[in-house]
Amino acid sequence: MHPEFEKYLKENTGLTEGAIHHISSKAFYKTLRRNELLLQAGDVCRQKVFIAKGLLRTYSIDANGNEHILQFTPEHSWTLDVESYDEEIPAETNIGATEPTEVLLWTKDDFNRLLSEVPELTKLSQQVISRNIYYSKQRILTTLSGTPEEKYDDFIQRFPNLLSRLPLRMIASYLGISIKTLTRIRHNQLQR
Amino acid sequence: MHPEFEKYLKENTGLTEGAIHHISSKAFYKTLRRNELLLQAGDVCRQKVFIAKGLLRTYSIDANGNEHILQFTPEHSWTLDVESYDEEIPAETNIGATEPTEVLLWTKDDFNRLLSEVPELTKLSQQVISRNIYYSKQRILTTLSGTPEEKYDDFIQRFPNLLSRLPLRMIASYLGISIKTLTRIRHNQLQR
Repeated sequence: MHPEFEKYLKENTGLTEGAIHHISSKAFYKTLRRNELLLQAGDVCRQKVFIAKGLLRTYSIDANGNEHILQFTPEHSWTLDVESYDEEIPAETNIGATEPTEVLLWTKDDFNRLLSEVPELTKLSQQVISRNIYYSKQRILTTLSGTPEEKYDDFIQRFPNLLSRLPLRMIASYLGISIKTLTRIRHNQLQR
Repeated sequence: MHPEFEKYLKENTGLTEGAIHHISSKAFYKTLRRNELLLQAGDVCRQKVFIAKGLLRTYSIDANGNEHILQFTPEHSWTLDVESYDEEIPAETNIGATEPTEVLLWTKDDFNRLLSEVPELTKLSQQVISRNIYYSKQRILTTLSGTPEEKYDDFIQRFPNLLSRLPLRMIASYLGISIKTLTRIRHNQLQR
């Protein structure tokens, strides 16, 4: 029913066809246009999100109107505002599409029921959470320690597929550097 | 047996006296001198750590010998190198005491057994993990978006009890700013 998602589950779990169909059958399918929001800061995040195709970004907007990008989530990964979802409080971040995107959504009730019915889904969820924790730690260390050049190199190594899909201003915002600095770095690299 | 820890469990869970004693009885007690390491980068983190008294910091050292502080963990909180503990791989970070510290340690085997025996401990662990995720998110956003002044104000608000317990160089390292900048900020604030 949702072939991209079912392929992902087959590759990442030992779930039976039956269980895969069961999980898949509870999902809602949604398409997003470029720049369309899936979650707006201030709203409660009520759904687990799997990206079947496309690219989302999680970001906040500061008092001066500047966008700060916390995370990019490409196809075959999960996203949500975890604090808002867990505690049912207004989200602090926005989640929006940076290109045309297809997502699958599960309501919290449905997903919790699936977790209790399918132990292997719990295991997968815990892996996704763990990877997120590892990633956040790396992100903090890179943000603290790197020069702008190192931050950019780290980004290229970590997300080689994203570079051509993102406008420069988003990469700069993710790295916490100015567009001017990013342009200078890229210019210098081309000349090497 | 470990009164600080038992008080913490009483305040943060609905566990019975019996269960509290059972969890407590599996812990090893250890004291650390100031600057003593609990975990050294390169070693595998094999224990869950509860800080009964004192203050630990998690940090990495970059190629230039500079220390970057990921986290401070004061009394009545938990710490570990989560990726090293989960995957049993060498830790990327050091965990050291910034003042004389008393910790309780559980081996992974013992702690996993306790988790399967005491469902409420699993609940508490999940809360600790969730709070860590929320905290990491906030930390990334503050690191990306704040001016040095905002970062320092955020630190004071979030950790009012730590300010007098830490040398300036550690606060600067945590905030990702130079000691010179931190000194200037503090000087300006005193003159306000």
